[in-house]
Amino acid sequence: MDITAFAPASVSNVACGFDIMGFALERPGDTVTVRFSKSPGVSIRSISGNATPLPMDPAKNTAGAPVIAMLKRCGTRAGVEIDIHKGLPVGSGIGSSAASAVAAAVACNTLLDAGLSREELLHFAIEGEKIASEAVHVDNLSPCLWGGFVLVRGYNPIDIVPIPVPENLWCTILHPHLEIQTKESRRMLPKVIPMGDVITQTGNAAGLIAGLMTANFGLISRSLRDVIAEPVRQHFIPGFVEMKNAALGEGALGCSISGSGPSLFALATSEEVASKAGTAMGKVLDTIGCPHSIILSRIGRTGARIVS
Amino acid sequence: MDITAFAPASVSNVACGFDIMGFALERPGDTVTVRFSKSPGVSIRSISGNATPLPMDPAKNTAGAPVIAMLKRCGTRAGVEIDIHKGLPVGSGIGSSAASAVAAAVACNTLLDAGLSREELLHFAIEGEKIASEAVHVDNLSPCLWGGFVLVRGYNPIDIVPIPVPENLWCTILHPHLEIQTKESRRMLPKVIPMGDVITQTGNAAGLIAGLMTANFGLISRSLRDVIAEPVRQHFIPGFVEMKNAALGEGALGCSISGSGPSLFALATSEEVASKAGTAMGKVLDTIGCPHSIILSRIGRTGARIVS
Repeated sequence: MDITAFAPASVSNVACGFDIMGFALERPGDTVTVRFSKSPGVSIRSISGNATPLPMDPAKNTAGAPVIAMLKRCGTRAGVEIDIHKGLPVGSGIGSSAASAVAAAVACNTLLDAGLSREELLHFAIEGEKIASEAVHVDNLSPCLWGGFVLVRGYNPIDIVPIPVPENLWCTILHPHLEIQTKESRRMLPKVIPMGDVITQTGNAAGLIAGLMTANFGLISRSLRDVIAEPVRQHFIPGFVEMKNAALGEGALGCSISGSGPSLFALATSEEVASKAGTAMGKVLDTIGCPHSIILSRIGRTGARIVS
Repeated sequence: MDITAFAPASVSNVACGFDIMGFALERPGDTVTVRFSKSPGVSIRSISGNATPLPMDPAKNTAGAPVIAMLKRCGTRAGVEIDIHKGLPVGSGIGSSAASAVAAAVACNTLLDAGLSREELLHFAIEGEKIASEAVHVDNLSPCLWGGFVLVRGYNPIDIVPIPVPENLWCTILHPHLEIQTKESRRMLPKVIPMGDVITQTGNAAGLIAGLMTANFGLISRSLRDVIAEPVRQHFIPGFVEMKNAALGEGALGCSISGSGPSLFALATSEEVASKAGTAMGKVLDTIGCPHSIILSRIGRTGARIVS
């Protein structure tokens, strides 16, 4: 019996929510199929889709590690075989490793008839995310699992708060085809933050939550500002300021770096504005000769799910 | 014609919202009466109530300064006479100077038939608050004016966001009768904050907003934590840790320092719990021989208003 799960792309940080906020897209996403195999243990049979080579060793693969952990937890001697289809580009900053880890955990939950809750699945998905980055943050994993917009209130213990979002909220992803090492990008961040910036950041984070929950687009727009990571990380992204201004010029509510980049996200209240923002951002990269791709999607209200 | 306005006590910072959050109580508050006088200029005729001596010079008085500024703005040559009744103890950390400034601005708005909005009145009330503290923060002034719970999203320009609060939210104020200089207390605060604490603080600030807006008392409780000001300021308040534990032990949702202290606030979902929390906190101060007073109030949904 093949069980296939889909898990969507996600945007973490969301300007003012460094390490504590994220939202899911509707598409694209990764698809993971699991089935019982005759031999015990976990094996990866195939990896298809976006072409970056990924480890076939399940212990070193973001989809493999959660399955290994789940089999161990269930105390089963069954063997599981995995097919991975990457709909997401690796290293793009839209939660590629999170999507594979979450899809694998969700599919395996059904295969094993384990009946685990999202909170429990999150802990297994973390095993996959650990492979991709030093410090584990769940601001991609949790929107990928829950869907919609998610606040990670705290990490000790992990406290996930789903936040209602307005109906018509569209996201543009501008993905410059260049590589940023998440670890490197994180190392560049300041270790301490001036008090004035802390006050600005907490005000904006609180404002974004209030804006989302009341569909107050003006407040959302005023809150989508990052005084902590964006000032540093923008220097890794050619044309960042011009792209951001281009998106805002087309009427986007806000624009910042998705996760640790290199992708940018912009939010808009219609598909039309989202599309225009993408085109305008793309033109900036055309000018400097940087290849890129553009994704348009609503905020995805449904997170990871079994598709067959 | 006498115009009298009432403005309530308020709690700023609210644990996780340093400089950006505050809420109003129903009572107590300050009362300011204004009337036209025969001679031009502004004069203070009387100050009654809580006994701390306050300046009779209107330019040096938190209720006088807003009236001076409003007369100037209106370009009137009328004279105004002020009576101040202090229901709030000065220097207690529950917005005493804010209440006088706001009550004066609200009363004067009616006396002059100026028709100013709350946003405009806030700017005049700031003239009063400036007298009491070096740096002007509006996290007492704005809940005092608007009522309820208020987020100050940003200061450039000032962006006030009223936040809906659950019906049954009670506040206990424990006021130790000792003096803390706001300026001194502010100087002790760290100038820079470690990144980990910034993430904790933004998560809690965002969580508190979400908790208030969905009447999720568990989330409110988990969010009412301060890793920035409380660790420093608690050392100015004898018995702080014991009082906080006593309040939480009685079932309070959270307990921290009101403004820059010395008062503590605790939040609770019933008058009974609020009362028990107050008694338990008071016992701690009894043990160490520190005189104090206790205030119980619901969160005040109505801010400053004309009462006669």
